[in-house]
Amino acid sequence: MYETFLYNPQTGFNTERLDREQIRQALSDHASVLWIDLKTIDDEEIDILTEVFNLHPLTIEDFIMANARPKIENFKDYIFLVMFSIQSFEKEKGRVNKDERDFCLGKNFLVTAHNDSEKAFATNKERIRKQSPIIKNGVDFLLYSLLDSLVDSYFPIIDEFDNMVDAMNDELFRDPSNDTLKKIYTLKNEIMHLRRTIGPQADVMSIVGRGDLPYISPANSVYFRNIYDNLVRLNDIVGTSRDIITGAMEAYVSIVSNRLNDIMKTLTVIATIMMPLTLIASIYGMNFKHMPELESKMGYPLVITIMLSLSILMLYYFKKRKWL
Amino acid sequence: MYETFLYNPQTGFNTERLDREQIRQALSDHASVLWIDLKTIDDEEIDILTEVFNLHPLTIEDFIMANARPKIENFKDYIFLVMFSIQSFEKEKGRVNKDERDFCLGKNFLVTAHNDSEKAFATNKERIRKQSPIIKNGVDFLLYSLLDSLVDSYFPIIDEFDNMVDAMNDELFRDPSNDTLKKIYTLKNEIMHLRRTIGPQADVMSIVGRGDLPYISPANSVYFRNIYDNLVRLNDIVGTSRDIITGAMEAYVSIVSNRLNDIMKTLTVIATIMMPLTLIASIYGMNFKHMPELESKMGYPLVITIMLSLSILMLYYFKKRKWL
Amino acid sequence: MYETFLYNPQTGFNTERLDREQIRQALSDHASVLWIDLKTIDDEEIDILTEVFNLHPLTIEDFIMANARPKIENFKDYIFLVMFSIQSFEKEKGRVNKDERDFCLGKNFLVTAHNDSEKAFATNKERIRKQSPIIKNGVDFLLYSLLDSLVDSYFPIIDEFDNMVDAMNDELFRDPSNDTLKKIYTLKNEIMHLRRTIGPQADVMSIVGRGDLPYISPANSVYFRNIYDNLVRLNDIVGTSRDIITGAMEAYVSIVSNRLNDIMKTLTVIATIMMPLTLIASIYGMNFKHMPELESKMGYPLVITIMLSLSILMLYYFKKRKWL
Amino acid sequence: MYETFLYNPQTGFNTERLDREQIRQALSDHASVLWIDLKTIDDEEIDILTEVFNLHPLTIEDFIMANARPKIENFKDYIFLVMFSIQSFEKEKGRVNKDERDFCLGKNFLVTAHNDSEKAFATNKERIRKQSPIIKNGVDFLLYSLLDSLVDSYFPIIDEFDNMVDAMNDELFRDPSNDTLKKIYTLKNEIMHLRRTIGPQADVMSIVGRGDLPYISPANSVYFRNIYDNLVRLNDIVGTSRDIITGAMEAYVSIVSNRLNDIMKTLTVIATIMMPLTLIASIYGMNFKHMPELESKMGYPLVITIMLSLSILMLYYFKKRKWL
Amino acid sequence: MYETFLYNPQTGFNTERLDREQIRQALSDHASVLWIDLKTIDDEEIDILTEVFNLHPLTIEDFIMANARPKIENFKDYIFLVMFSIQSFEKEKGRVNKDERDFCLGKNFLVTAHNDSEKAFATNKERIRKQSPIIKNGVDFLLYSLLDSLVDSYFPIIDEFDNMVDAMNDELFRDPSNDTLKKIYTLKNEIMHLRRTIGPQADVMSIVGRGDLPYISPANSVYFRNIYDNLVRLNDIVGTSRDIITGAMEAYVSIVSNRLNDIMKTLTVIATIMMPLTLIASIYGMNFKHMPELESKMGYPLVITIMLSLSILMLYYFKKRKWL
Repeated sequence: MYETFLYNPQTGFNTERLDREQIRQALSDHASVLWIDLKTIDDEEIDILTEVFNLHPLTIEDFIMANARPKIENFKDYIFLVMFSIQSFEKEKGRVNKDERDFCLGKNFLVTAHNDSEKAFATNKERIRKQSPIIKNGVDFLLYSLLDSLVDSYFPIIDEFDNMVDAMNDELFRDPSNDTLKKIYTLKNEIMHLRRTIGPQADVMSIVGRGDLPYISPANSVYFRNIYDNLVRLNDIVGTSRDIITGAMEAYVSIVSNRLNDIMKTLTVIATIMMPLTLIASIYGMNFKHMPELESKMGYPLVITIMLSLSILMLYYFKKRKWL
Repeated sequence: MYETFLYNPQTGFNTERLDREQIRQALSDHASVLWIDLKTIDDEEIDILTEVFNLHPLTIEDFIMANARPKIENFKDYIFLVMFSIQSFEKEKGRVNKDERDFCLGKNFLVTAHNDSEKAFATNKERIRKQSPIIKNGVDFLLYSLLDSLVDSYFPIIDEFDNMVDAMNDELFRDPSNDTLKKIYTLKNEIMHLRRTIGPQADVMSIVGRGDLPYISPANSVYFRNIYDNLVRLNDIVGTSRDIITGAMEAYVSIVSNRLNDIMKTLTVIATIMMPLTLIASIYGMNFKHMPELESKMGYPLVITIMLSLSILMLYYFKKRKWL
Repeated sequence: MYETFLYNPQTGFNTERLDREQIRQALSDHASVLWIDLKTIDDEEIDILTEVFNLHPLTIEDFIMANARPKIENFKDYIFLVMFSIQSFEKEKGRVNKDERDFCLGKNFLVTAHNDSEKAFATNKERIRKQSPIIKNGVDFLLYSLLDSLVDSYFPIIDEFDNMVDAMNDELFRDPSNDTLKKIYTLKNEIMHLRRTIGPQADVMSIVGRGDLPYISPANSVYFRNIYDNLVRLNDIVGTSRDIITGAMEAYVSIVSNRLNDIMKTLTVIATIMMPLTLIASIYGMNFKHMPELESKMGYPLVITIMLSLSILMLYYFKKRKWL
Repeated sequence: MYETFLYNPQTGFNTERLDREQIRQALSDHASVLWIDLKTIDDEEIDILTEVFNLHPLTIEDFIMANARPKIENFKDYIFLVMFSIQSFEKEKGRVNKDERDFCLGKNFLVTAHNDSEKAFATNKERIRKQSPIIKNGVDFLLYSLLDSLVDSYFPIIDEFDNMVDAMNDELFRDPSNDTLKKIYTLKNEIMHLRRTIGPQADVMSIVGRGDLPYISPANSVYFRNIYDNLVRLNDIVGTSRDIITGAMEAYVSIVSNRLNDIMKTLTVIATIMMPLTLIASIYGMNFKHMPELESKMGYPLVITIMLSLSILMLYYFKKRKWL
Repeated sequence: MYETFLYNPQTGFNTERLDREQIRQALSDHASVLWIDLKTIDDEEIDILTEVFNLHPLTIEDFIMANARPKIENFKDYIFLVMFSIQSFEKEKGRVNKDERDFCLGKNFLVTAHNDSEKAFATNKERIRKQSPIIKNGVDFLLYSLLDSLVDSYFPIIDEFDNMVDAMNDELFRDPSNDTLKKIYTLKNEIMHLRRTIGPQADVMSIVGRGDLPYISPANSVYFRNIYDNLVRLNDIVGTSRDIITGAMEAYVSIVSNRLNDIMKTLTVIATIMMPLTLIASIYGMNFKHMPELESKMGYPLVITIMLSLSILMLYYFKKRKWL
């Protein structure tokens, strides 16, 4: 299944679905701007790509198969681009959901393909149906407007992500638990996925923005540099988050060790106070026949007084050493 | 709202606010040097930028929207620069407050924009009002003097920052606490922000200082290289701080572990001395009918003597092992 | 021992083993496409490589000796390539089993060599025996199809590897043991070996895909870029795994420390509750003559009540401090 | 205050202080080689630099102000170099004391400036006063000989530094303390300062050694490459030290943890032996009326024997587990 | 002291020691291939290098003084190379013993120098004395054969090193001790030295293998690329070892922490079982007049039964929590 959007300076907008022959006619008119969005890639679509658009077998393969990396390839009659949008965000698994978007830009046509048939490019299509000028300015400007809305889809997710890093940051020094560590660890892996998604796309846009590619007019290359700037900015934000998270992971070990110190101080204080007292009590629990203190009337209160004094002395000592 | 500063070799200084038509006239005279500082960017200013200065829509957008990264863009009729000053320093949040400053340098004009309408460029404006030669030397020298005072604003903040690192460094080995760790962590994140602010600006200045840009005379490019040198120097100082902080974070774990060792030594010494003594006392607390020692007159003092000797022996042993 | 596969537009397919003289004849016909696969390299093969193919002594040496790194070398009459396939995976030792494959591509011939005489290129040979067009498209396309199936051999192993990383990841926070650490450590070393195998091969394919090498037609270079893309993708997956594993190793220390904290809390709670109670019991175990409490009828139940209250109070305190 | 050293093939050596007019004359004779060393930079010196040597305002500024980084700048009539010598070494603070040395090399003159007015270049001046040929070979060879003695000043300090690293290395496994950690930490920061001092100077010398700068004859550029080699060698030594120190810091945590394990083993052994014995003693200290063992004549010696056997058994067990 | 090896197509081999004048004659005949190996560098040798070979003073200095880094320098009449062989391996100190080898390659001569006068190049000399063709193929092939045997000297040492890493790897999870850590630490420093020795030599060989140097025939440059390949391979092996060692150091901390957890579990189990039992015994050791349980005949066996049940219950609990 596919949709077509045709603009011709003479005949104007045509957003109805063109058949194979109509596409061939539209392509032959160099003034036309044709966008064909492939919702599924079945035999019919493959036939059109092969026979009408004359795409290289490897391009057809790229359209059909999933790609894992952004790329740009320069063929004789067209440029082929693989880019990715982020649709949603699986918090539990710590994976960013990427959606591949393929673009094939020729002299007067743009072929696009994607997985999520309904949502992808929905607003762009709506705008064209309302006769927006984005298709009038040529097929390269159309590509720009599609890529621009694609990159815009990153910002809310990066923002949400940034909030999670801030929340983690607050939790780290206030109340760190095993769960905090898991959050840090998951965030770290998420960041890694984001970087690996955004970075190579910036590389691709940097090539497109250089302005020496065919089918992209030098005047419009500044728009692609603008997308490149946005991607570099996203990369910067994600890079900052990564550095914070890496620091948080290092700090966590120290925080946990600090806590252990506190626990051990408690134990040591308890043991240091209780053990000598118990020893004293045990000594006077011995059954020696001749222990003069035991006979004395003041023996018991004296020992209790000594015990109390000893405890107070030790507490004071630990207070001074800041263990309490 | 905007301010204008005009210098013309024939008519001299004019620091009164020019209207749209006067700006157009000033621009048409190639001997003029015109600086227009946009305090706000409303419809009037956008109209002037579009109609009078003929700026590209993306440049207008860059003027209006916040940019997150320094950049330089080379348009047909002008160069567009985004730089950042540091105004203040939020110690609690660990964030450096950056202020964007946009510069648009043409043949005989300089357009600047910023957020903090009053303070930005205040001293520079004052000097021009006092007929300083900084505007006489051409629009590129004017840009240099604005950038120079912008970069100068970094030094006091970097110095304050350096002092904080030194203070942390002293605290680290003298009296490290959980709070010290938090300081290290916060300083680390601050440093990261500073590096991400300074580094790319140095890159931009390196491009400007190369001397092959239009509207910047080769003779003046040495001044921009001077700004570049200052930014590299700042980057060096911040890099040194980062290395110190990173080392401090690593050292902290070891320091905390050393403390734990000390705590555990205390506990072990206490337990090792007290437990055998308590065992001895417990043994003579047993109720066996036939325990010859209990009958002996010397039993009690002997046991106490043994206990004391044992303690002294153990203390001596721990002293020798340097646990005390 | 060697096998030969000859295709000639006039005489068609010949998959029978050619002798020395027949090979010489095949080479002299520029329309022929000859593939010779060396199963062993003995005197006969060395003689053919030297005398018939005129290979450089160092190339012969490379064919005979094991190479540890992928490489490409450009000789006057041929290109020499060393690539590696992964055959199996030794889980215990944490080593990836690489198999060297040597390729020598000339104007109309391809010489290949490898260790595992039977399995290597088995499917490719089968296809040629069934008169597949992969040999018809020229000797460079034949090289592509061999390299393509070589790189395809990586994917199942990388997938298996990915599953091991995921399993480790689950185990890490659920039930980490010394064995988990060993798994992480072994996986880390495996990843390292994989990266060192895949990365340099991508570099080699990037050179081949540039399209400026002799004996590789510019039209076919896009196929080698396709292999390059696959290798970069593999490198990406392995790089992601490495980052996860590195993070896992860092997280492990913290997880173990967290556990230690839990253990120490248990010990401290036990000691803090038991020691004071034992002290109280020891006090009333003293043998002083004059201890009024001992005479009282309510003495014993009162002490027991105090002990119980003290325990409950302490448990409540530890509950509040979240130590229980 | 300044000193001048003039050599002229005809008039020979003149090491007396020339005044402004004499300097101007010396410069006008292209066969002369003039070295002027500025001990202080006051109005008189600034006037000479500006009026006689025609230096750029930024160069004058660089002479007056402290520079933090080595640099080379290529002006129309001269090359300006900032280099650093190390004079001494503050062990306590962990800072290397750098001394800035500025060089301004023209067609037939060399201007130098520094802070430590007496010691800097003292031996070089002495050699010239003794009519050493270092000034005869031209102004570029003079620059080389000054830089060479400057770089030579690094070696004794680097050696001393290396000894400190070796000493730390020995201490690390023999008797590590909190003080050892502080040494490691301080050495690490020192190394960082050294690297930041040496590295950029090597970069500067690499530029000078390329042999395409004006005022440096291609035949002499090999001497500057020699200085470059020395700086790279210094950088290597310092880099090795840094790697050792970084490893030492990582190892320290493990060493401290190992010690903690030893301490805890001691505690566990003590507790495991003492606690059951104390329990046994406590059991026979119970006041039950009917405890048949208490009546038996063999009760007491039997219990003591059991206690001893238990201790020996446990000691044997811990010995076997290598805890003792 | 020096040895000379002369080959001339007409006069054949001459391995006798030539004097100054004979060397001069040999050099003047362009068909000759002369190798002079300096065993010591005294006045006689310096005189020959200066007067007969016309070497630059800096080259003479490089011959006399120890160099710390491999390098290649291109002089007008010759190429000067510094390379290093590894002779032996000091396990205790963790230092690799490098031996400098200097090579000076001219049009028809090769000058070599080294420290270990007897062993260096011994086999090569032997082969020439047996009239091996290695000197017939020209002075560049002679250089190759010397470098090749130099690089071959690395392999046994790297192999031994690899075995040490494997042994450490086995020990790490089986029975890690403080000594294991010391081994890891020492191996890490050794690896560092090896990398710093091998890496820069690969860089030097990469320059020589490029084939654009004078005195090295393009046809022979493939041999130097072969040496480069060997060095890169060595670097790879060492790099792999480094990564394993780095991972081992990180893993060690976790292993030690795991052990600490085990120790603490033992202590906690002992304390948790013994303390309540001791408390019970202490309670029935109290001397209250009115403790009904003490009178009961079943008191004692009941308490012992309770104690046993409690122990079993706790052991079961710890078993379930996998602490035992």
